[in-house]
Amino acid sequence: MAKVLAKREEDYAQWYNDLVVKADLAENSGVRGCMVIKPYGYAIWETMQSDLDRRFKETGHQNAYFPIFIPKSYFSKEADHVEGFAKECAVVTHYRLKNAEDGSGVVVDEDARLEEELIVRPTSETIIWDTYRNWVQSYRDLPILINQWANVVRWEMRTRLFLRTAEFLWQEGHTAHATQAEAVQEAETMLRVYAEFVEEILAIPVIRGIKTESERFAGALETYCIEALMQDGKALQAGTSHFLGQNFAKAFDVKFQDKEGKVDHVWATSWGVSTRLMGALIMSHSDNNGLVLPPLLAPTQLVIVPIYRGQEELDTLRPVAEKLMNELRDRGVRVRFDDRDTHKPGWKFNQYELQGVPLRIALGKRDLENGTVELARRDTLEKSSIPLEEVAGTVNDLLEQIQQSLFEKALRFQKANTHRVDSWEEFVERIEQGGFLSAHWDGTAETEERIKKETKATIRCIPLNAEEENGKCIYSGNPSQRRVLFARAY
Amino acid sequence: MAKVLAKREEDYAQWYNDLVVKADLAENSGVRGCMVIKPYGYAIWETMQSDLDRRFKETGHQNAYFPIFIPKSYFSKEADHVEGFAKECAVVTHYRLKNAEDGSGVVVDEDARLEEELIVRPTSETIIWDTYRNWVQSYRDLPILINQWANVVRWEMRTRLFLRTAEFLWQEGHTAHATQAEAVQEAETMLRVYAEFVEEILAIPVIRGIKTESERFAGALETYCIEALMQDGKALQAGTSHFLGQNFAKAFDVKFQDKEGKVDHVWATSWGVSTRLMGALIMSHSDNNGLVLPPLLAPTQLVIVPIYRGQEELDTLRPVAEKLMNELRDRGVRVRFDDRDTHKPGWKFNQYELQGVPLRIALGKRDLENGTVELARRDTLEKSSIPLEEVAGTVNDLLEQIQQSLFEKALRFQKANTHRVDSWEEFVERIEQGGFLSAHWDGTAETEERIKKETKATIRCIPLNAEEENGKCIYSGNPSQRRVLFARAY
Repeated sequence: MAKVLAKREEDYAQWYNDLVVKADLAENSGVRGCMVIKPYGYAIWETMQSDLDRRFKETGHQNAYFPIFIPKSYFSKEADHVEGFAKECAVVTHYRLKNAEDGSGVVVDEDARLEEELIVRPTSETIIWDTYRNWVQSYRDLPILINQWANVVRWEMRTRLFLRTAEFLWQEGHTAHATQAEAVQEAETMLRVYAEFVEEILAIPVIRGIKTESERFAGALETYCIEALMQDGKALQAGTSHFLGQNFAKAFDVKFQDKEGKVDHVWATSWGVSTRLMGALIMSHSDNNGLVLPPLLAPTQLVIVPIYRGQEELDTLRPVAEKLMNELRDRGVRVRFDDRDTHKPGWKFNQYELQGVPLRIALGKRDLENGTVELARRDTLEKSSIPLEEVAGTVNDLLEQIQQSLFEKALRFQKANTHRVDSWEEFVERIEQGGFLSAHWDGTAETEERIKKETKATIRCIPLNAEEENGKCIYSGNPSQRRVLFARAY
Repeated sequence: MAKVLAKREEDYAQWYNDLVVKADLAENSGVRGCMVIKPYGYAIWETMQSDLDRRFKETGHQNAYFPIFIPKSYFSKEADHVEGFAKECAVVTHYRLKNAEDGSGVVVDEDARLEEELIVRPTSETIIWDTYRNWVQSYRDLPILINQWANVVRWEMRTRLFLRTAEFLWQEGHTAHATQAEAVQEAETMLRVYAEFVEEILAIPVIRGIKTESERFAGALETYCIEALMQDGKALQAGTSHFLGQNFAKAFDVKFQDKEGKVDHVWATSWGVSTRLMGALIMSHSDNNGLVLPPLLAPTQLVIVPIYRGQEELDTLRPVAEKLMNELRDRGVRVRFDDRDTHKPGWKFNQYELQGVPLRIALGKRDLENGTVELARRDTLEKSSIPLEEVAGTVNDLLEQIQQSLFEKALRFQKANTHRVDSWEEFVERIEQGGFLSAHWDGTAETEERIKKETKATIRCIPLNAEEENGKCIYSGNPSQRRVLFARAY
């Protein structure tokens, strides 16, 4: 099989798109900007979901479900929020089709116009806070710690599979608290949950920080974020957690009585990650042969490919493969024996490389005679011959090792591509090569905007671990107390 | 606490609605016809999902995700299909809001009108078969066995929580096959999966059958269904599985080449169950005290309520409760120790009855002295005093017993309310008392329609196990070969 992907170093965007499609992760649908998530891609997303869901529940959250539609009037109640989302939303105006009078097909029935238009949710703060109003009277009703797994729609003009699509899948947490401190702590807790999930499961190192005012979520007082660095040197926001203050409680009149009988508005957070994480996953580890999957996310962790001529040879290999498969399953390894006779071994090898299966065992007649198998590792592409009887005892360690090694490699890449920059000239030059630039900024939205205009770089975050350090803004020369992280971003 | 529900025997519809709301399962939202599924209700749905998902995967299916929007033109390609759904669909016509010129808020931006309207999916056959066209060339690409967990929208005019809502959650399987026989077998397999799931997990006995032509899914050649009988004598369709023939393959031009090189259209099935099952669950087992949950679906299977005066007494009870809780958890029981001091034991008792927790243990000072606890069973409302040390060893058996007993009780009810009816007079009289009526029908849509008009009864199904039996149609007197099942239905 010829290499099916554009080369990563020649055309990163094309390589990415080729990979997503050819590895059977997702594809564009007939609906502008909406993707089809194919079974292989969806299986990876399901693993992410189930791990995240466990973490949410362990931190005291419950799932619920709120309507997909938001009445236009709700949407307008929080001024910043509507400003942030009104320009990119799908609007439902009618509730019926009818046969065209000229027999040309179905048309919208103008008699079935909604009194008030409905917005397909781009995010659910407004509909949820409208609901919380009836759930909260007293401090006894707080906190509310709810998460929702859902689809949302933002009418993006330029879309890319997983990274930016009109419809995407996500989870959105929406919590309500009696005090500011508790809400801030919740937002910080969820940032930690996201960071640990992305680092432990996706094997992607992240920078934890807060957004500048102009990069905040529409309606938030503080946006916490995790930022990851992709192989092409561009940053990707992998998750956000917002402290919303009392903005939504005020907009939707959600009040509670505390122990002393005092009435106050409720404090809020919201937080989310989406199928965008699939994009981050792909762009952190993969290569010109295709996807490279951290073992914890791999639907198949090890594949056994028989090398044989004729049914008889396959029949001698089969019991060996099945015994090995059972041993591995007993140890919790997700294993597949690919005995399809519709495809040749070489085709299968390429396919499993393309789909990022972490380990591959080739099992042939000669191996059997020698009591060995050929074991190939997807991340390093190394092959080794190992005694058949040692395989089962080796695989779990090896999978852990690969998981660890992918994280370390990505961390080395991130560190090698993070630079402290102290002059505008250096900034302008460096930004062309990508990576994170750690630099002083005077704290004004004007400077931030100008830097963005001149270099396409944005402030990804003010890192949580940023040390106090007196310096001068690289752009304006005005005083600054800490460095922030710039990058061009997805 | 006063009884909070309308009486089931006095106003069934009100009792149902009260129960759904007061047991914290769901409530109406600010969006017409759309519900909020509350955490307690959603936790039950999640358990259904996860059990069904396992059954789907065990029968070879994979999950995927397709767009929520369907271009109007796709929708029209299968004639019966559009006829069936066009009258109740949400239509997206615009993709942007803007500030009103008079400053009155946001309005739809008329410049952002879609060239082609998008329908919010009421079901996904059309968008999925448009996608399958590119996935299938050869018999090697078949079968495709895909399921989707998703939200769908049908613009119902009269809605009821869980039973009939404008938006609901469901799963929809969509499979593609090389032969008619294989597709029929798939549809039958999935009917079996649904029937086993509903009987084993929801503890609801079902009748398996096929729909008459007029009750078929829009676009299907055969609709298989499971029908359950609710406590008020009305039937509820709990799941359907459709053999779609080549209708959608023809509408979307999906062809494949078989082993011999012959080109043919692909054969299809689709099948789904929805949050409607929550309605079936509630209406099969619950009583005037609230929800009765089969233990397999109960988020909390056993609750321990401490009976105490003052912190000191609670402190002596706590270690006993915690030890018991740990023992039960080790045995896989989902258990909660409710030591909240914001509510009195009596309030808690009522609340757990309302929410259908299968077992409740009251643990007080006197019990401790006697080495016993009071164990209350939700389904029978029986209380017994049992030695503390025997509790852990008893609970699993008891939960199984309750699960079994709920099913048997529902089965007795179903049998007691299924009647063979051989005359029109008897039919008209019997139907008023509810239940399934097993009667001869002449096989014509006209008779079916007239019976419906005169009695509000529909043919729920032609049972799969219906025996050949010569008889006369109860309405027309024309010859009939087998009995069918009539009922008034949700």
